[in-house]
Amino acid sequence: MRYSDHAEPVLTLTSGPVNAYPDVLRGLGRTVLYDYDPAFQAFYEKVVDKTRRAMRLSTRPVILHGEPVLGLEAAAASLITPGDTVLNLASGVYGKGFGYWAKRYSPNLLEIETAYNEAIDPQAVRDMLREHPEVSVVSVCHHDTPSGTINPIDEIGALVSAHGAYLIVDAVSSFGGMKTHPEDCKADLYVTGPNKCLGAPPGLTMMGVSPRAWDKMKANPAAPRASMLSILDWEQAWSRAEPFPFTPSVAEMNGLDVALDLYLGEGPEAVWARHALTAKATRAGIRAMGLSLWAAREAIASPTTTAVRTPDGIDEAALRRAVRARYGVVFSSGRSETLGKLTRIGHMGPTAQPIYAVAALAALGGALRAEGYEADVGAAVAAAMAVSDADA
Amino acid sequence: MRYSDHAEPVLTLTSGPVNAYPDVLRGLGRTVLYDYDPAFQAFYEKVVDKTRRAMRLSTRPVILHGEPVLGLEAAAASLITPGDTVLNLASGVYGKGFGYWAKRYSPNLLEIETAYNEAIDPQAVRDMLREHPEVSVVSVCHHDTPSGTINPIDEIGALVSAHGAYLIVDAVSSFGGMKTHPEDCKADLYVTGPNKCLGAPPGLTMMGVSPRAWDKMKANPAAPRASMLSILDWEQAWSRAEPFPFTPSVAEMNGLDVALDLYLGEGPEAVWARHALTAKATRAGIRAMGLSLWAAREAIASPTTTAVRTPDGIDEAALRRAVRARYGVVFSSGRSETLGKLTRIGHMGPTAQPIYAVAALAALGGALRAEGYEADVGAAVAAAMAVSDADA
Amino acid sequence: MRYSDHAEPVLTLTSGPVNAYPDVLRGLGRTVLYDYDPAFQAFYEKVVDKTRRAMRLSTRPVILHGEPVLGLEAAAASLITPGDTVLNLASGVYGKGFGYWAKRYSPNLLEIETAYNEAIDPQAVRDMLREHPEVSVVSVCHHDTPSGTINPIDEIGALVSAHGAYLIVDAVSSFGGMKTHPEDCKADLYVTGPNKCLGAPPGLTMMGVSPRAWDKMKANPAAPRASMLSILDWEQAWSRAEPFPFTPSVAEMNGLDVALDLYLGEGPEAVWARHALTAKATRAGIRAMGLSLWAAREAIASPTTTAVRTPDGIDEAALRRAVRARYGVVFSSGRSETLGKLTRIGHMGPTAQPIYAVAALAALGGALRAEGYEADVGAAVAAAMAVSDADA
Amino acid sequence: MRYSDHAEPVLTLTSGPVNAYPDVLRGLGRTVLYDYDPAFQAFYEKVVDKTRRAMRLSTRPVILHGEPVLGLEAAAASLITPGDTVLNLASGVYGKGFGYWAKRYSPNLLEIETAYNEAIDPQAVRDMLREHPEVSVVSVCHHDTPSGTINPIDEIGALVSAHGAYLIVDAVSSFGGMKTHPEDCKADLYVTGPNKCLGAPPGLTMMGVSPRAWDKMKANPAAPRASMLSILDWEQAWSRAEPFPFTPSVAEMNGLDVALDLYLGEGPEAVWARHALTAKATRAGIRAMGLSLWAAREAIASPTTTAVRTPDGIDEAALRRAVRARYGVVFSSGRSETLGKLTRIGHMGPTAQPIYAVAALAALGGALRAEGYEADVGAAVAAAMAVSDADA
Repeated sequence: MRYSDHAEPVLTLTSGPVNAYPDVLRGLGRTVLYDYDPAFQAFYEKVVDKTRRAMRLSTRPVILHGEPVLGLEAAAASLITPGDTVLNLASGVYGKGFGYWAKRYSPNLLEIETAYNEAIDPQAVRDMLREHPEVSVVSVCHHDTPSGTINPIDEIGALVSAHGAYLIVDAVSSFGGMKTHPEDCKADLYVTGPNKCLGAPPGLTMMGVSPRAWDKMKANPAAPRASMLSILDWEQAWSRAEPFPFTPSVAEMNGLDVALDLYLGEGPEAVWARHALTAKATRAGIRAMGLSLWAAREAIASPTTTAVRTPDGIDEAALRRAVRARYGVVFSSGRSETLGKLTRIGHMGPTAQPIYAVAALAALGGALRAEGYEADVGAAVAAAMAVSDADA
Repeated sequence: MRYSDHAEPVLTLTSGPVNAYPDVLRGLGRTVLYDYDPAFQAFYEKVVDKTRRAMRLSTRPVILHGEPVLGLEAAAASLITPGDTVLNLASGVYGKGFGYWAKRYSPNLLEIETAYNEAIDPQAVRDMLREHPEVSVVSVCHHDTPSGTINPIDEIGALVSAHGAYLIVDAVSSFGGMKTHPEDCKADLYVTGPNKCLGAPPGLTMMGVSPRAWDKMKANPAAPRASMLSILDWEQAWSRAEPFPFTPSVAEMNGLDVALDLYLGEGPEAVWARHALTAKATRAGIRAMGLSLWAAREAIASPTTTAVRTPDGIDEAALRRAVRARYGVVFSSGRSETLGKLTRIGHMGPTAQPIYAVAALAALGGALRAEGYEADVGAAVAAAMAVSDADA
Repeated sequence: MRYSDHAEPVLTLTSGPVNAYPDVLRGLGRTVLYDYDPAFQAFYEKVVDKTRRAMRLSTRPVILHGEPVLGLEAAAASLITPGDTVLNLASGVYGKGFGYWAKRYSPNLLEIETAYNEAIDPQAVRDMLREHPEVSVVSVCHHDTPSGTINPIDEIGALVSAHGAYLIVDAVSSFGGMKTHPEDCKADLYVTGPNKCLGAPPGLTMMGVSPRAWDKMKANPAAPRASMLSILDWEQAWSRAEPFPFTPSVAEMNGLDVALDLYLGEGPEAVWARHALTAKATRAGIRAMGLSLWAAREAIASPTTTAVRTPDGIDEAALRRAVRARYGVVFSSGRSETLGKLTRIGHMGPTAQPIYAVAALAALGGALRAEGYEADVGAAVAAAMAVSDADA
Repeated sequence: MRYSDHAEPVLTLTSGPVNAYPDVLRGLGRTVLYDYDPAFQAFYEKVVDKTRRAMRLSTRPVILHGEPVLGLEAAAASLITPGDTVLNLASGVYGKGFGYWAKRYSPNLLEIETAYNEAIDPQAVRDMLREHPEVSVVSVCHHDTPSGTINPIDEIGALVSAHGAYLIVDAVSSFGGMKTHPEDCKADLYVTGPNKCLGAPPGLTMMGVSPRAWDKMKANPAAPRASMLSILDWEQAWSRAEPFPFTPSVAEMNGLDVALDLYLGEGPEAVWARHALTAKATRAGIRAMGLSLWAAREAIASPTTTAVRTPDGIDEAALRRAVRARYGVVFSSGRSETLGKLTRIGHMGPTAQPIYAVAALAALGGALRAEGYEADVGAAVAAAMAVSDADA
C-alpha cells in the first residue's frame, strides 16, 4: 500500500517533535484557568517544583514560554557580555550554531570544533582553558541532535568549573532520555524542554540557573528585561504570590505537569534504560544491515537518536519519502551540514521502546531495498532482538 | 527490560478490544448532551444515517446500547419463536455459542458443525436445507474470532434466501475490516459493532434489519419489548421526532460518529486493503518462522485476526506472558475449545498496518525463543516485508 | 439572539444526562486496553473497589454494562420469582414503571400508589406489610425523577427489613447527590449509575447486592444467565483472576474511574451539600417568581432536580423551546403522566452549583415572560442569592 | 458554601485567559506530528490560510510561537528604527506600555495620552500628525484591556494612512469579538492571538503584515533575525515547501485550527453579536445595581470586557476574593494604574453569552453586599435580561 503525504503517518520515529504520551495529550485539554486565579498560581508553583525534582536541582528552575531555542537565545543574551571571552564547543550543527548567538553578545569567541561525527575531547578543553585563562563562559551542546552524538558534559563541566568560567549547556534532546542534570555537569545555565524525551509537545523551555548565573545576569545591564527574551523577568514567577511577566502558556503547562508525573512515576532510571536499550538495539540492527552509524564511535552515539550514514548512491530525501510512503513511518533528516548525509531514527519518550527499533529497522531496510540497496532486513531485526533479549 | 503487568502495554495487537483511533478517543470526550436536546436528536439521526451508509443498507439500521453480545442475544430473542426450526452453522466457539441462545427460544435446533479450524461448506448447507425444508431460520458467525476463520456468508446467504429462511449473521469482528455488508449476504439480522475493525471502544451494537425481519419480530408476541433486549423498542428511535426507549449511551455515540467518519473518509476499500495486507504479511511471517496457522487453509484465514497454532511443548499462556513482559505487546488467547491451542494476533482498525505485522512477528518470535522454540525472527520479518513490499 | 436547535446549547441544566465533568470527558479518552490485559483486569478490580467505597458497601458491588434501566430490569428478572409477592411503591412514573417489570416475573403484585407529587408514607408501608405478611419483595424508587420527589427509603428499608422481605431500590438519580447508600436503607438490590449525580455519561449500572440477594438469585432457576440481563454472570467479574461474561465497556469504565475519584476527592458530604444548596436556592427563586413547585411539600423536593409546576395557560413544550432559543439553556420536560405539567431543572454533578440556580431562574423567568406569564426574574434571583449567601 | 482557592472555579469570566471552547481543548490533544512531516507542513499552510480568512487579509499573516506580547515586542523591534519618529497613542496601561518598547528602538517618541477611562480622539491624532510631519510610525492599542475601553482604530488608521506613516495595532483582546481586521484600519502590523475572543489557550501570535511593512522590516538591519523575536524569519514559513526557523508549537497550532473553524463556522458576525449583546446586558445590569462603568462613556466600552469602577470604600481585591469564594466565579482585576480601581468581567469566546452576564452580575452583586455595598442584584439581573430579551 502507499501512505498519503496528506494523512497522518502510522509511526513518528523522529528526533522530535515526537508524538506526546497519550496522557500528556489529554492533559493539554484541561480547563484553561485564568493565570491570576489562585488555583493556577498554586499549580504553576507546583509544576516548577516538580520540574526541580525532575532536574534534580537544589534551586528553582525557570520555565520560559517558548520552545528551547528561546531558552538558548535568552541564555546567550542574558549571560554573555562584551567583556566575556566565550569558548564555544562545536561538534555539530547545533553546537556550532550557538557560537553565532554568543558572537552577537561578545566579540571574543573561541571555538573548539570537531568533525560533526565526533565528540569534544575533554583534553582539548583542558588545553584551551590553560592557554586562554581569559575564557569566562563556555558553551556546549550535550546531544548535537543533527549528528546523533553525545558530548561528555560532566567531564567538561568539571574542567570549566575548576577554571572558574560559566557554563551554558544545551541539553534539549538529551535530558529525560539519559542521565544528565544541571548540577551533574555544574552548568550555570542548562537549557532543556518537554518536547523531546519527556514526550510533551514543543512550546516551553525548562532552564536550570545557578545562583552565580543569576548574579551575573542581574549585573548585566544589557540582559533582556521586559522582553520575551528575558530570563530575569521570570526569576520570581514560580511563586504563587508573584505576578507573571506575561501570560504563561497555560495548556503547555498542563501538558508539562502530566509529562513530569509520568517521568517521575515511571522512574528516571527506568526511562533512561529504555531509551538506551532502544538505541542499542537500533544500532545493532543498523550494523547487521551493513550500514554505518554516523557517529564515529558507538561510545558517543546518542541513546535518544540514532543517526545512520546514508549509503553511497542513495538519495537520503528519497529514502525517507519511501519509508513514509511504503510503511507510514517518519524519520528525521539531517540538518545543514548533515543534511543528505544521514537519516535519524529517534528514540524519545513514548517511542523509546525496543519494539519500535524493530519497526524502524524494518521500515528503513525495506525502503533501502526499494531504493536499490541490498539491506538484509531479517538480519537487522534479529540483531536488534538479540540486544533486546539480552536485557530481558 | 521487563514490562510490568500493572502498566499499560506498548502495543495492543489483539482481536479486540483494540485501542481506538486517537480521533475516536478524543470524540468520546465531546460534550454530553441531554438526550432530548434537539441538537442531540438530530445528531442521533445523523449517526444512524452514517451507519446506514457504512453498512450499505437500503433501510435504516438499529443501534443498541450494549456491546454486540447484546445484539446477538436480542436477535435470537426477537426473531426466533418456538415454531421455528433453526439451522445453526458452527465452525467455532462463537458460532457454536449462538446455538445455545437459539435453543432458548426454539426447541427445534439443527446444526452443521465443522472442526474449529475449518469453515462451513456451502454445499453442506445446501444439502441440509434440502433435507430439512422446515428450516425457517439460519444463523452463522462470519468471522469466528476464537479461530480466526471466515465463513462464506455471501454464498450461504444466497442459499438461505433461495430457501426462504431468515438469516442471522454475526459479523462483529469482520465488518469494517473486509468486504461484508448485510445486503451482500441477504441477512435479515446482521449484528456488528464499533469495537473491532472500526477502531472504537466496546459499548454499542450496530444492526441491519430487513423489512421482513421487522415483520417477523413484530408478529412474535415473545419478542422482548420494554426491555434492554428489545430491538422493536428502537425501531423509530433513529428519528429526531421520536423518543428513546431509554437513555442512549451518549459518549459511545460520539465515538461511533468519529469512527464512521474515519471509515468513510479513508474509504472502505482502502481500509479493507490494509487489513488484508497486514494479515497476509503476518501469515507469511508465521510460516517463515516454521509455525502453523490455526486455519486449515489460508483461504479461510481472517483478514482481521491471525490465529497461530501453538507449537508442541509450548505453554500458550506463558508464551503470551513472555510477549508482554519482554516487548510490551499484547495478543489474544483462544477461547474455550481453542484456549491454549492458539495465539491470536489482531489486525483491526488502527492496528491494521503492515508495520505492526513486523512488530507482532518480532515479539512472537522473540518470546517463542525465550520459551525454547527456535523461531527464526529474521526470516519471519523478511517474509512479512516481502508481502508488504509486493503491494507498494 | 436566537440559539439554533442544531448547535450545542450553552448550559444543559437537565435531570440527566447532564454534561460530564471535564476530567471525566478526558478520562473517556484513555487508551482502550484489551479486556484480558492484566493491566485492565487490575484496573477493573480497582474501579469496583472504588465503587464500593463510594457506595459505602461492606460487599463488592456489581457493574453492569448498560445504563441503569439495564440494572433495574435485571434486578426484577433475577430476584423476583413467580412465588414472590411483590409490593411496589409508586409515587411517580418511574416507581409505577417498575411494577410492570415486577409483574412480568410474578403474578402477585401489590402496590401503594400516591399522587405523583407526593411521597410514600412509611406508615402506609407498615400497614400494608402487616396486612400482607406474604409480601416477600418490596420495590421503591428513591428519587422519582419525572416528579422531582424523594421517598424516605431509609425508613421504608427499616420496615421492610423488619418484615423480612427483600428490598429493591432505584437510586439512579439520587445517589451521589444526597446521602443515600445501599446499606443505609438495607437494600438487597440497589441500582444506580454514573450518569446522574456522579457527572459521567450514561452507559453503566452500579449495583449493590446483599449476600442474601445473591443467594436468592442463585436459587432462582429463571434468573438470567448467559444473558445481557444477568447479574449472576458478573458476580466474580470484579476479580482480576476471573473472566468477563462479555467485553465490558472499557471507555465507560475509564470515565467512571475518574468520576469516582472526583466524588471521593471532593468529599461526598461536600458534594451533597452543593446539590442541596443549589436545589434550595432554586426553590426559593421559583416561589419568589410566583411559581409553584410540583412537589406537594418542600420536604420531599429532590436536591438533585427541581420540578416546577407549569402555570395555567402556558404550553410547557413551548416554554422549554423558548428557554433554549432565547438563552441557550436546556431543561427537562416531565415524562408520561407528568409531561406537559412541569419543567425540571436539574442539579447534578457539575451543574450542582448555586450560580447555575441563578442562570436557571433567569432563563426560566425570561422565557415565561416571553410566553406571557409575568415572572419577576429579579425577585427570583434575589431570593436564590439570599439562600446561597446564607450558607456562605 | 465556600469555594477553595485550591480547586478549579465554576466559571472563569475574565478578560483572558478564559477557558477554551471544549472543541479547542480536545483539539490540543491531536497527534503531535513531526514538524517536517509533509502532513504537518500542509496542515500549517492550511492553518495560515484559515487565519488569513478569519483576519480578512489579502496577504498571508504570520504566526509567531509565543503569546501576543511576543508579537508586540517583535513588531517594535522589527519595524521601528532609530530614524523613525513614533507617535504612540496611550489611552491605558497597554497602550502606554507599548511606548516603552518603541522608545527602545527609536529615541524619537511622541505620545498622545488620555485619561485611562477615555479613548483617543481622532482629531487629536489629526492635529498631532499635522504638527509633526516627521511622524513615521503610529502605534495604538485597540482594546486597552486593563481599562475595558476601545479606541477608534479604523478612523485613526485612515488618518495615519493619509499621513503616510506606518501603523502598528494591538488588537489582541478585540479581534474575534468585534468587527476589526487589519485592512479595515490599514494596519501595517496588526497583532492578535487565539487566546482571547477566539477561545483558545495562550501561546501564539497571529499577525497581519502589510507588503510595505515587509519592505521596511527587511530594510532594517537591526530587525531581529535568527531570533525568537524575528518576524522576518517566518515570512515564508507558511509554505509547505519551506523550513521553519525553529520548531513551531504543534499543539497550539492544533488548537488554533479548531478555534478558527469554530469562528468561521459560527460566522464572525454572529460571534461579534453575542459578544456585543453580553457586554450590553452586563452594562445595563451594572448601572441598575447603582455601579459605574470605568469607561467614561458607554460608546467606548468594550464588547469583550466590562470594567466596573470599584465603589468607594470597597477593597477591590477583597471583592474578587469574595466573588470567587462565595460563588466560584473569577473576574479580572485592573493592572498597574487601574489596579484596585476596577473589576473586569470578560465576555470572550465561550463566555460571550448573555446568560453569563446574569451569572456575573449575580456574583458581583452578592459579593458587593457581603462587602457592605447595598447592591440590588434583582434589579441588575432584570436589567440585563431586558437587554437580552430585546434582542431575541
